Amino acid sequence: MDEPDNKTTVAELRKLVADFVAERDWSQFHSPKNVSMALAIEAAELMEHFQWLTTDASRELGTNPEKLAEVGEELADVIGYSFALANELGLDISSAVRAKMVKNAQKYPAEKYRGRYERPNT
Amino acid sequence: MDEPDNKTTVAELRKLVADFVAERDWSQFHSPKNVSMALAIEAAELMEHFQWLTTDASRELGTNPEKLAEVGEELADVIGYSFALANELGLDISSAVRAKMVKNAQKYPAEKYRGRYERPNT
Amino acid sequence: MDEPDNKTTVAELRKLVADFVAERDWSQFHSPKNVSMALAIEAAELMEHFQWLTTDASRELGTNPEKLAEVGEELADVIGYSFALANELGLDISSAVRAKMVKNAQKYPAEKYRGRYERPNT
Amino acid sequence: MDEPDNKTTVAELRKLVADFVAERDWSQFHSPKNVSMALAIEAAELMEHFQWLTTDASRELGTNPEKLAEVGEELADVIGYSFALANELGLDISSAVRAKMVKNAQKYPAEKYRGRYERPNT
Repeated sequence: MDEPDNKTTVAELRKLVADFVAERDWSQFHSPKNVSMALAIEAAELMEHFQWLTTDASRELGTNPEKLAEVGEELADVIGYSFALANELGLDISSAVRAKMVKNAQKYPAEKYRGRYERPNT
Repeated sequence: MDEPDNKTTVAELRKLVADFVAERDWSQFHSPKNVSMALAIEAAELMEHFQWLTTDASRELGTNPEKLAEVGEELADVIGYSFALANELGLDISSAVRAKMVKNAQKYPAEKYRGRYERPNT
Repeated sequence: MDEPDNKTTVAELRKLVADFVAERDWSQFHSPKNVSMALAIEAAELMEHFQWLTTDASRELGTNPEKLAEVGEELADVIGYSFALANELGLDISSAVRAKMVKNAQKYPAEKYRGRYERPNT
Repeated sequence: MDEPDNKTTVAELRKLVADFVAERDWSQFHSPKNVSMALAIEAAELMEHFQWLTTDASRELGTNPEKLAEVGEELADVIGYSFALANELGLDISSAVRAKMVKNAQKYPAEKYRGRYERPNT
């Protein structure tokens, strides 16, 4: 596939968010506490698109271009605030995601958890 | 800076998540509805680190390496599920984020919203 | 039914929460902002019990006494923080709920929304 | 005080919600999974009123009647869905809240946690 995700670095998207915040002098409101709230609020708005659907019906949403665009906007907000939080805290996202996936692989060995949704409480 | 985010594409991180899910045959549980719930739950766990702090104290969390690592793990979970959702729905993240930032810039013109947190209801 | 809910006033439960907070001198941490975060976090923990279940399977959870007790604890936390917020803000809950149900009835007339989950965006 | 909360039982408010749902034949959509999502979404909408405020400023919101009414509506939604979930699962709220407050008192002994917000991870 020749999609933008193949050519776009995480740093490029982070800079887009950082510039937006800087141009509005919003860093003063972007304490990690506030940004974590904004992120949770956007996650809820994303979830709102699926709340009354069955799990099966939620899979079909991707075939409706209009609905998909709406969901894409909410997901962009979630990712935008995730990047804003990383910017405020000085966290490297690629490192954090890679480290967590290693930890997840240890916690959920593939052979043991294949096809099982019952996971130990965390 | 020579951080991994400068050299890592969004597609590389998405593939990491896609492989993890495929190796466990978890796509059957990853309906968009379920993944949106998982994302909101992780966002709440991230927020938990800041819930009793003042906004100022939350800014200092970044200076505590142990706390920062904990927050980094939760943020990695949020981003991981964001990518899992994009994978299930076939959404290009870079396009979605860029389009949303253009829309945000129109909604919050820099000269009008500089230093103001009072935003119109959305 | 002769259940406690039939004989317990909202004010009695509110006082239970108010006394708990006062005995620990926690009102200083119970700013409405912080309590609203705690409430959202507890709501996510409640949701966690249902995240990988189908909607049908979630209905059967009530037949498992152990699971039901766990869910009851999370719901108690949600309601506890709801009452804590009402205490901090000086809101009468019965009045707020009654007023909102009247508004909901106007927004979703029974004859029009019977058996329909598609609701206008709010 | 002569407020409605002093004279209103939990069961009365639960019945208000149960009748509303029954009149619209919405129980079919009110699986515990779906209601837990709706509850988390309403909790996020409540939190939205406080997201950019300092903790101190959030305390003053109670002095603004218009803002207080808005927050009261969101809190009513949270409580409404809490009661809807209890209705679907057949849970007695007063019993659940009382039992949880006893457990909380054991977990956070008053003399040890007085004036301290640092709580053990749960």
